[in-house]
Amino acid sequence: MNKEIKKPKAILPKGFKDNVQELIDLRNTVTETIRAECQKFGFAELETSSIEYTDVLGKFLPDKDRPSGGVFSFQDDDDQWLSLRYDLTAPLARFVAQNYQDLVKPFKRFQSGIVWRNEKAGPGRYREFLQFDADVIGVQSTCIDAELCIMISNIFKNLGLSFEQFQIKYSNREIWDDLFRKLEINEEVEPLVLRAIDKKDRVGIDGVKNLLQEGRKDQSGDFMEGVGLDDSQTEQIINFLDNNDQSNQQLEEFKDYLSNYKDYPITFDPSVVRGLDYYTGMVFEAELLLNIKNKKGEDVVFGSVAGGGRYDKLVSRFGKEDVPATGISIGVDRLIVALQQQDLLSANRPPLVVIANMDKNQLSEYLKMADELRNVGIACEVSYGSKNLAKQLKYCDRKKANIVVIAGDSEISKGVVSIKDLAAGKDLSKKITEREEWKESKAGQFEVQRKEFVIAIKKILDNQ
Amino acid sequence: MNKEIKKPKAILPKGFKDNVQELIDLRNTVTETIRAECQKFGFAELETSSIEYTDVLGKFLPDKDRPSGGVFSFQDDDDQWLSLRYDLTAPLARFVAQNYQDLVKPFKRFQSGIVWRNEKAGPGRYREFLQFDADVIGVQSTCIDAELCIMISNIFKNLGLSFEQFQIKYSNREIWDDLFRKLEINEEVEPLVLRAIDKKDRVGIDGVKNLLQEGRKDQSGDFMEGVGLDDSQTEQIINFLDNNDQSNQQLEEFKDYLSNYKDYPITFDPSVVRGLDYYTGMVFEAELLLNIKNKKGEDVVFGSVAGGGRYDKLVSRFGKEDVPATGISIGVDRLIVALQQQDLLSANRPPLVVIANMDKNQLSEYLKMADELRNVGIACEVSYGSKNLAKQLKYCDRKKANIVVIAGDSEISKGVVSIKDLAAGKDLSKKITEREEWKESKAGQFEVQRKEFVIAIKKILDNQ
Repeated sequence: MNKEIKKPKAILPKGFKDNVQELIDLRNTVTETIRAECQKFGFAELETSSIEYTDVLGKFLPDKDRPSGGVFSFQDDDDQWLSLRYDLTAPLARFVAQNYQDLVKPFKRFQSGIVWRNEKAGPGRYREFLQFDADVIGVQSTCIDAELCIMISNIFKNLGLSFEQFQIKYSNREIWDDLFRKLEINEEVEPLVLRAIDKKDRVGIDGVKNLLQEGRKDQSGDFMEGVGLDDSQTEQIINFLDNNDQSNQQLEEFKDYLSNYKDYPITFDPSVVRGLDYYTGMVFEAELLLNIKNKKGEDVVFGSVAGGGRYDKLVSRFGKEDVPATGISIGVDRLIVALQQQDLLSANRPPLVVIANMDKNQLSEYLKMADELRNVGIACEVSYGSKNLAKQLKYCDRKKANIVVIAGDSEISKGVVSIKDLAAGKDLSKKITEREEWKESKAGQFEVQRKEFVIAIKKILDNQ
Repeated sequence: MNKEIKKPKAILPKGFKDNVQELIDLRNTVTETIRAECQKFGFAELETSSIEYTDVLGKFLPDKDRPSGGVFSFQDDDDQWLSLRYDLTAPLARFVAQNYQDLVKPFKRFQSGIVWRNEKAGPGRYREFLQFDADVIGVQSTCIDAELCIMISNIFKNLGLSFEQFQIKYSNREIWDDLFRKLEINEEVEPLVLRAIDKKDRVGIDGVKNLLQEGRKDQSGDFMEGVGLDDSQTEQIINFLDNNDQSNQQLEEFKDYLSNYKDYPITFDPSVVRGLDYYTGMVFEAELLLNIKNKKGEDVVFGSVAGGGRYDKLVSRFGKEDVPATGISIGVDRLIVALQQQDLLSANRPPLVVIANMDKNQLSEYLKMADELRNVGIACEVSYGSKNLAKQLKYCDRKKANIVVIAGDSEISKGVVSIKDLAAGKDLSKKITEREEWKESKAGQFEVQRKEFVIAIKKILDNQ
């Protein structure tokens, strides 16, 4: 009768994880804060499909130096290639191109969604994570870019960060384009130069120099090929990185629009380029100025938690004309790590009442008692497991229950129930193993009329 | 310079769609209602990975008659097969097996998540959709199954359905097992018989008969193979379907636990078997008793929107002992369709104020005005597009804005702004094409001091 079947292992592939209540609560708190702010700015939510035709996604990954294709792909029944989205921007561009005539312009949408990266997993580096994007499509105005930076600032403020704890650095791709033309750097090489500059925070100014010229070996020994610029080109680029006098018309407009926001931590920094090929104008990056500890307990630079910019040519990939577009992307999971470390974020659980299972033939009565509590908004569980009270109290402890209700046949027949305030009796409960002992330990425990037990419990919870 | 590159088409693969604000709002309303009820019953949220090893998922799809494998699968870098989850139960079983020692038992979790089915798409039949599951693991008690049925009832009640508008039918797989043994139907054939019975609502009693014997051709002409039972076996199964006197110990307990819930629409129905192989005891199915119209406007039976049951052997697939488990699954998207048709669910948008772009050099002032409104919780957009007022009013109309604020150089220099109540002036606004005309049409429009405009707007919105 027993077939020999190889049993599967109960494990997850590398780079994937399960999220428990606490993280989900934090995520919900953070995304609700971001969502509320976006709605205040007139953005509407959009949820694009998680699967797209592979050619629709194109190749706009931030780090092209990785070996794998970067996306999870598979063939459909008709042999066409499908992929899981790796960001929320490429699917948005497809959506806009597909529905352009019907969209109210400016089209302002936000999206909160999982994205997948088929990359090498590492500590804290997952292959699926939550992103939050907000974009404005169809209107060309630097005012939008300015407003996006105000919006990010408000979001951080609403999450509890002060203006000293973050900064938003902005720049404009066009000032780099002008320099590249002056230095006679051709279009093929430009993206490589921009990606080298984008690594400044991670590899330092000398690292950028090496990447612009002969290449660089990182701490793990991996060699990253250089762009092959000459000394003069490299020097002018390095000087440019520190030169805050750069400007152009868009930058001037941007500053002007922010004239009422001088207290906001929004500053010009020419070294902000964003690694992605598709940016065309204003670019911005939000970083936290917090002392964050890594898993070894060392202080580390936390780096960027949000960024974005203008990408006026992304929609025209689909054969349409250029469409003005700008947007921001927030790495929600990274932001949560930082906020948690600063104690700016904590999961808030509602109180819980457990009705102990004292007599099996009272279970239908317990179900009813539970419902009476739930009807006034109190979370309640019937303990339908072991009838051993010590085990049930241990369960209450592990579930962080606030109150346990004890009502066996004898109580029920007298029309009463016992209520134990677990916060008050927490220390005692650890030592209790028998019901008689329990009965004697009166710390926080008292008897009430069955018909008044909801009121009594509400009173305890209100006082806790 | 121009390279000839084949441009991708801006389309989605069949069976996938984009969801806009209205549906997302409805989804959030429904999932929040379900989530709140689950939390009141002491369930905690869990979010498992969306990608699992293929062998972990096994093969537990409700309809094995489809040609494709039913799941989206792809190979990892190490050649192992990965799949997108097709339900929330198989990943839960993996999670429980993986973390069994650390879990507080009973482990009560709920999960709201997208699932993917690699199936033939059709009208209203998508390849990714939202599911909501709640399960209780680690304790064997029919009381849990009873409580799950109470919980589904409460969820439907909280969503606005009366007890006349839905019913929860329950049965027990063991009564069928007893019959199958009596009829000498072997284990291999059992699942096929159960799946035939499960189709009763769709194919009728004669359809079930055909499926149990020689097979059945459906309306589209597709032939579905029969199980090959003889006349006697078939007859006894068909009789069993209508026999409400069946019982066993679990069914008796279940009824007893619900003795305080006689008004709840929870009824025994032996024809409820659930199509899935893995159920082992109590099974239940929730269906709406509403007149639902299909896309052609015809009244149709809406069928099941939720269901579940006990699956005590699913965790032991991973080499552990049997673990008691029971749960429910709610098809959120289907439920929304039904609730919408009954006008029980509607998206509620917060009011929106638009600040018209009258003079470009006032944009920084407009940004500030917008922020003043947002600071008191009012959603506000600066219109940074066309300066043509008629176009801007059309935009307000399409975005269903409540108020538009008009302040050009002249107003700002006088320290005033114009406020137009769009609800009051809705009819007029359609005819207005010029600013002068607009100025003359005073319906719902008035001037206020710049410093008092937030108070004035709050007043209008409170009265709307």
